[in-house]
Amino acid sequence: MLTLLGLGLEPTDISLKGLELAKKADAVYLEKYTSIVLDETEIERVIGREIKQAYREDIEGSDGGDPLIIKEALDKDIVLLVVGTPLFATTHTELLIRAQELKIGINVLHNASIQSAMGCCGFNSYGFGKTVSIPFFIDNWRPYDFIKNIMTNFNNGLHTLCLLDIKINEPTIATLMGQENVRYNRFMTINEAISQIEEAADKCGNTELSNIKIVGIERLGQKTERFAYGTLSELKDKEYGPPLHSIIIPSAHGNAMEKECVERFFASR
Amino acid sequence: MLTLLGLGLEPTDISLKGLELAKKADAVYLEKYTSIVLDETEIERVIGREIKQAYREDIEGSDGGDPLIIKEALDKDIVLLVVGTPLFATTHTELLIRAQELKIGINVLHNASIQSAMGCCGFNSYGFGKTVSIPFFIDNWRPYDFIKNIMTNFNNGLHTLCLLDIKINEPTIATLMGQENVRYNRFMTINEAISQIEEAADKCGNTELSNIKIVGIERLGQKTERFAYGTLSELKDKEYGPPLHSIIIPSAHGNAMEKECVERFFASR
Repeated sequence: MLTLLGLGLEPTDISLKGLELAKKADAVYLEKYTSIVLDETEIERVIGREIKQAYREDIEGSDGGDPLIIKEALDKDIVLLVVGTPLFATTHTELLIRAQELKIGINVLHNASIQSAMGCCGFNSYGFGKTVSIPFFIDNWRPYDFIKNIMTNFNNGLHTLCLLDIKINEPTIATLMGQENVRYNRFMTINEAISQIEEAADKCGNTELSNIKIVGIERLGQKTERFAYGTLSELKDKEYGPPLHSIIIPSAHGNAMEKECVERFFASR
Repeated sequence: MLTLLGLGLEPTDISLKGLELAKKADAVYLEKYTSIVLDETEIERVIGREIKQAYREDIEGSDGGDPLIIKEALDKDIVLLVVGTPLFATTHTELLIRAQELKIGINVLHNASIQSAMGCCGFNSYGFGKTVSIPFFIDNWRPYDFIKNIMTNFNNGLHTLCLLDIKINEPTIATLMGQENVRYNRFMTINEAISQIEEAADKCGNTELSNIKIVGIERLGQKTERFAYGTLSELKDKEYGPPLHSIIIPSAHGNAMEKECVERFFASR
């Protein structure tokens, strides 16, 4: 039996149903690489038991064989905790399908993801187009595709939720070359994202974004959640707190009532 | 103090954090008109206290004055339970902003919505465009706009999640005219939605949808969840169970790996 259990945006977002399943499972793993790591000690306290860590190889497998999670679920009752909601990342969908193919019983417990919270500051959930990921640029790898997706939404009157890249337990180049064993976590900030958006817009000849107000969101759905509202250049040099950061780019062609709603939201804070 | 508390897709989807707030609030209301009504007795059992019902006028106000929920939250600790996640419907966003303007403390607890579950059958969450609502056609009111939104997604290589119309506690025409006092609930079925999609596609000259396989979903995220996969005409006359129903219309231009994922999902069931 395999249960994919969405934790939501904070440890106490776990559902009653989920808590019960986690308490009685043979083993509980925490998925550690598709999203920010919530406070593990706090998760253990909430669930009241020890949780094990599951990294990429435990979930996707390596050498072409089935991953650890699948092997264990063949004859045990395994819970995989996923921050946010499961099935948001393709890798959980593949796990689900592989379990189905092996006739392992499955159970998916949906929870809040950042997409559940898109209406957070006055926007209409129906007004969003495709969600866009902004990847960390590296020296010679600077993919500008995301700006095309933003502009397609923008020109169709749709807002864009931008998810900013994260690296969890990522090996350094020297580690990959066997010269050391160092892994690191890195979370893209609103500042970094804006500078990448500006670079991409510039290279692709898009000038429309420079005058519109965007929303910078810190730690959406957590107690310390904060919003910033302003143009790219206004928000670029502001100071922000700890991760996770995200950005909403509103379409300038959205409807007037919604625009008023967003303005009222920020005016009343 | 006003807490907008998302219940998720089943009563036991309530979060630990939410349960605690609901237990100690001065009053707990259940929002009764933007989404399907979960089993109220079950919600009361889970929360362990009586809940009151809140209809449209209690939440949006009537005569231009503030709604009941806002008035009560001025000096009491009020929880409004929302099936799914709050802020998905514009009406909750307006409630939130009005509370902010009146300096009422606010608290939003996100939870699973149908959008959290879009990856349910092999689709990549990032592959979805704008979510589309399909409204009940009435004799002389047959808005075909939704088909344009579906086709825009379709032609941009994006899938469409279609939310099917619901009417909760809706007055009959005779009730509106003061001749009786009858209200009813109605939930659009997959069959009705397909027949409206076919009509709209036909009137707008779209023929591309007739050959692709779509997904009909019953009661997503609930214990009795079920999926159907086939062309519009294959799914149109099938028999389905109780609400809520939804539909996913995949883009024919999606990527090959994702298509394989969806095929494997349905093959392995």
